[in-house]
Amino acid sequence: MNPQSRFVPKGTITTPRGFRAGAVAAGLKAPMSASRLDLGLLYSERPCAAAGLFTTNKVQAAPVLVSREHLRHGMARAIAANSGGANAVTGARGLADAREMAALAAARLGLAPSEVLVASTGVIGVRLPMERLRAGLARITLSRRGGGKLARAILTTDRGPKEAAVSFPLGGETVTIGGIAKGAGMIHPHLATLLCFLATDAAVSPPLLQGALRDAADVSFNLLSIDGDTSTNDSVFLLASGAAGAPPITGGFAEQVFRSALERLCVHLAREVARGGEGASRLIEVTVEGARTQEEARAAARAIASSNLVKTAVYGADPNWGRVLAAAGRSGADLAPERASLYLGDVCLLRGGEPLPFDHEAARALLRGDEVAWRLELALGPGRAVAWGCDLSPEYVNINSSYTS
Amino acid sequence: MNPQSRFVPKGTITTPRGFRAGAVAAGLKAPMSASRLDLGLLYSERPCAAAGLFTTNKVQAAPVLVSREHLRHGMARAIAANSGGANAVTGARGLADAREMAALAAARLGLAPSEVLVASTGVIGVRLPMERLRAGLARITLSRRGGGKLARAILTTDRGPKEAAVSFPLGGETVTIGGIAKGAGMIHPHLATLLCFLATDAAVSPPLLQGALRDAADVSFNLLSIDGDTSTNDSVFLLASGAAGAPPITGGFAEQVFRSALERLCVHLAREVARGGEGASRLIEVTVEGARTQEEARAAARAIASSNLVKTAVYGADPNWGRVLAAAGRSGADLAPERASLYLGDVCLLRGGEPLPFDHEAARALLRGDEVAWRLELALGPGRAVAWGCDLSPEYVNINSSYTS
Repeated sequence: MNPQSRFVPKGTITTPRGFRAGAVAAGLKAPMSASRLDLGLLYSERPCAAAGLFTTNKVQAAPVLVSREHLRHGMARAIAANSGGANAVTGARGLADAREMAALAAARLGLAPSEVLVASTGVIGVRLPMERLRAGLARITLSRRGGGKLARAILTTDRGPKEAAVSFPLGGETVTIGGIAKGAGMIHPHLATLLCFLATDAAVSPPLLQGALRDAADVSFNLLSIDGDTSTNDSVFLLASGAAGAPPITGGFAEQVFRSALERLCVHLAREVARGGEGASRLIEVTVEGARTQEEARAAARAIASSNLVKTAVYGADPNWGRVLAAAGRSGADLAPERASLYLGDVCLLRGGEPLPFDHEAARALLRGDEVAWRLELALGPGRAVAWGCDLSPEYVNINSSYTS
Repeated sequence: MNPQSRFVPKGTITTPRGFRAGAVAAGLKAPMSASRLDLGLLYSERPCAAAGLFTTNKVQAAPVLVSREHLRHGMARAIAANSGGANAVTGARGLADAREMAALAAARLGLAPSEVLVASTGVIGVRLPMERLRAGLARITLSRRGGGKLARAILTTDRGPKEAAVSFPLGGETVTIGGIAKGAGMIHPHLATLLCFLATDAAVSPPLLQGALRDAADVSFNLLSIDGDTSTNDSVFLLASGAAGAPPITGGFAEQVFRSALERLCVHLAREVARGGEGASRLIEVTVEGARTQEEARAAARAIASSNLVKTAVYGADPNWGRVLAAAGRSGADLAPERASLYLGDVCLLRGGEPLPFDHEAARALLRGDEVAWRLELALGPGRAVAWGCDLSPEYVNINSSYTS
């Protein structure tokens, strides 16, 4: 995909130069969580160009409204984030709480409130315990190696942190993009998704940064589904500081390399989110080829990856492949059954609309792997897309049937 | 809704005059099914006006293609139906099998093949065992009281049959509409749903019949969701024989009474399907009021009723009401959070965008009832809709993780 970029071992959001992070256990979060840390900060030593993508849900959390506002000028220098409460559907007081969270972080870091982006995740409809949040923010210490702590502080029902970094050479310097993501349920993004914070020491102008982020999210987070429910708090942030000292990225080949590295990082994080879906035991990767258009390929791949029936069949390692066709058939994508072919891994189950005999035990073995790959060929046009999801297990139901109780 | 019509005790599809039905255990079905019966016939002693609605899935089962063709002239006199195999994605031979099924039933009943509608339900991608089907069809005996057997013959993972009849007076005669339905999973209809067969002894012309069926389905089956997956085999048939001897329904008040009775029957059957969803323990009824338009009310009500997160919360009797708002917010319906109010039964949880304190134990008690009623008021316009769904339990996953294995 991009021979120029490589993954940095143990990379995280503070791997790019000039970023510091930290987190504390402020007592916001329920004991069931994967980490007790629940409140964190990311800080850049220099001013940053900043880009953001937000949920398209009509119900937008207070921190989403505040961060949108603060991103208006394409600049930001810090992110304050908490788990343990989404601060969504919390009315006028919730909005004031989100503003105060940005202001407190700004005061702590010596910045203007508008330089701070805020993000929250957790139960909807419950106000943040501001006393604990104020006390917690005052206790956070920042360090160059604090990315891992911040990654843990944004987890809710996630099984573990999701963090990575890629780097590539530019103008004699090494440029790095690092990121962390959170997300295990209510994941079915439209235009943006979950919480994902990205930072780079490249120098990139705000418009170019926003375009690159949108395109990278389009082939990663926007093709990811865990349960079909779009969150009220989805936020993806990308800060670019220029601290690497490499020449500014203004277009041409450098932009291509940057975009490609960013896409690689986002796809990696999206796959990790799918793999770590609530109660999930397997990553499902769905490739749709030969759709009439790319949009139709995306619609079909998303419908398959988010079908409860496909997901339960994968959970049970049941090669009930007709469900894949049925999901594609309701996706809105054009589909001529007599032209369609379907593969599970390398095993062809359907060719030109005719079911083929197949070895059930071999198919079941493929479905028991860590990654399950479905490939649907529609033979109608050039459209191609890859989407990610996970299996649906009784554990998902157990997690979600007692989330607030 | 319709003071003119009343439910007939123990009503079924053979309650209207002039209809006979029967079913046998032909050996098509897996042992896990609620009934061993798996092949049945409905027969009208007179020619009937006929109407049908079919799945909008691009992947359409062979019996759907054949029944569409046979309904072209708006007349039919019999339905042949099987469970144990959907005859979908079965290629050219599957289409020939569906045609043979109609022809065999026609020969058995002394009809033309085009007078027979066919319907199948079960696993996708597997051909029907035609030897068993031929032998089974020959053994079916029809009776005026055979509706209950036919209702059981179309079940798959359903917990039990769904059947009812309503009647109303017309021109000094009693007119009856009876129906049976099947459906427990892969239920998220667009324009039509599941299998539902309806019969009436009213005399109704084909165009009026089709219009009445479409409108009744629109406020019943089309607002029903069990798991968000639209089937390849959804078919709703309505046969009208005129055997009651009442004057033909050609419009005016008689049409209104007929439509209202039909709607009442369809809503009843849709609710029964939701209540009996795979692994379900509760019926969820979602009312959305004050949407900008009726279409938006429908979209929001469907999104809430089919949200995995709402469904799991109801399963666990967890009053995590923010998920209801989040589902509405992603539905495409316009929604101003600061105007929205939400009720669980009679308990107001959110008023004008501000969360209210509520008695958690009382809310949990409401969520433990057989029927759980959410009501969302958007305060934006006149749109209103009611949709039905069911809770999502670990049992749903267990049923669907080993459907073919």
